[in-house]
Amino acid sequence: MVLPRNLQLDIIAATLEGFEEDIIFSLVDRVQYRVNGKIYRKGRSGFRGESRKSLFSIRLRCQEEMDARFGRYCVAEERPFTRRLPRPRRIAHLPDPGLALRDFNTVNLTADILRGYRGLVRRLCESGDDGHYGSSVEHDVSALQAISRRIHYGAMFVAESKYRTDPKTWRAMIDARDEKGMMRLLTRPKVENAVIARVREKVAAVQKQVNLRVRRRLDPETVVRYYREHVIPLTKKGEIIYLLHRRKDTREGRGRHYGG
Amino acid sequence: MVLPRNLQLDIIAATLEGFEEDIIFSLVDRVQYRVNGKIYRKGRSGFRGESRKSLFSIRLRCQEEMDARFGRYCVAEERPFTRRLPRPRRIAHLPDPGLALRDFNTVNLTADILRGYRGLVRRLCESGDDGHYGSSVEHDVSALQAISRRIHYGAMFVAESKYRTDPKTWRAMIDARDEKGMMRLLTRPKVENAVIARVREKVAAVQKQVNLRVRRRLDPETVVRYYREHVIPLTKKGEIIYLLHRRKDTREGRGRHYGG
Repeated sequence: MVLPRNLQLDIIAATLEGFEEDIIFSLVDRVQYRVNGKIYRKGRSGFRGESRKSLFSIRLRCQEEMDARFGRYCVAEERPFTRRLPRPRRIAHLPDPGLALRDFNTVNLTADILRGYRGLVRRLCESGDDGHYGSSVEHDVSALQAISRRIHYGAMFVAESKYRTDPKTWRAMIDARDEKGMMRLLTRPKVENAVIARVREKVAAVQKQVNLRVRRRLDPETVVRYYREHVIPLTKKGEIIYLLHRRKDTREGRGRHYGG
Repeated sequence: MVLPRNLQLDIIAATLEGFEEDIIFSLVDRVQYRVNGKIYRKGRSGFRGESRKSLFSIRLRCQEEMDARFGRYCVAEERPFTRRLPRPRRIAHLPDPGLALRDFNTVNLTADILRGYRGLVRRLCESGDDGHYGSSVEHDVSALQAISRRIHYGAMFVAESKYRTDPKTWRAMIDARDEKGMMRLLTRPKVENAVIARVREKVAAVQKQVNLRVRRRLDPETVVRYYREHVIPLTKKGEIIYLLHRRKDTREGRGRHYGG
């Protein structure tokens, strides 16, 4: 059985590598600033007309409102962190991603991602406050979008690809709701270790020529730990959710396919 | 005479290096998509309620409206490409940058930057159309913001730093409006060549581990040419504008200094 190109596992793996770069680039930007804990505190935004939210949540919402209007969340792997966003004001026509999900939003790990990210910032950034609140929240939002894209893409496309290579086995496990069995089958320690090794090398390579007089270094081990404790487990959690909700009545998948 | 840290030439050079990375990261993102010429064409945005603008200009304006509310343009080196933006809804207190300009916006090279960038996209990206309009304009806007920050920061801080190391010479040239003489004094071929060499190496280093099955490579020579023909000349043009408008009545500078 020949899978369409975008569902071939090696193509998916390579795409995940690309998303990995987006995450690393965003984190390199974020660590140039201190933790700036104030930006996450409610009622301390200093933003006129917003007395109750944090600066971070105001920025996140503004960014997602804009992105929603431009159609970002019509793309299968894009998932907003906030709710009740405006409808898209444009419709683009992209190829059918080939997923077999009635509503892509069934796989939504944004709450987990958000929780894990706050801890990441505390470990990655220098503690304290430097006053660069605007830049800090801007890079937080880019990093979160990149992480979310990586996890949701991985979850849905890896799961669909695996399903299609052996529908009988998977359908039986899904019908039995055998989550443990699925997790066993989805876990490939060799692949996970290769991802970890590549992330470590890439974080180092990207910063090889960094001038440490003015730039702060993104610590590879902290990123590696974040991959091991959050990115990889959340991707697998998403794969299981995807499989449990996979449509029975289709081999090809007929998800929404506008976006761009 | 001891200059404040942020006006020391080697610190400025190192900060410019950091901005260089932002530019490279954004361009790596942009070249993943084709030129998508339609996004720059007026009346072809496909954006409901916007029949006359291009998708690119709609996105640029939306981004800058959001950024303006968050106070981005209160920072000395940030300069919007669009006009009549909303007022900031927050005020942050950052250190006085030490510039001697009544209005930072006197140095505004955004029109030149925009013109040069369109040519850069044509040379960097694969020709044709891939339908990824939303992502293309998003990365265009990030790249433009990074380029603009690099050029405006370089222009103002290099000029002020040079002025302070020899105020008598510079004041005489400014009073004589001797632009040619200033350009001679501002041009340091050795430094320019070192910047060019570093950009070339950095573009290659950042992509050393790129998987070319799914990622497109940012061509180092095209970026180098853009630096030689646009970034460096525009920075010097900005330095001269800065010097011609430098306040006489201050050694320390008292520009606006809120932002963040």
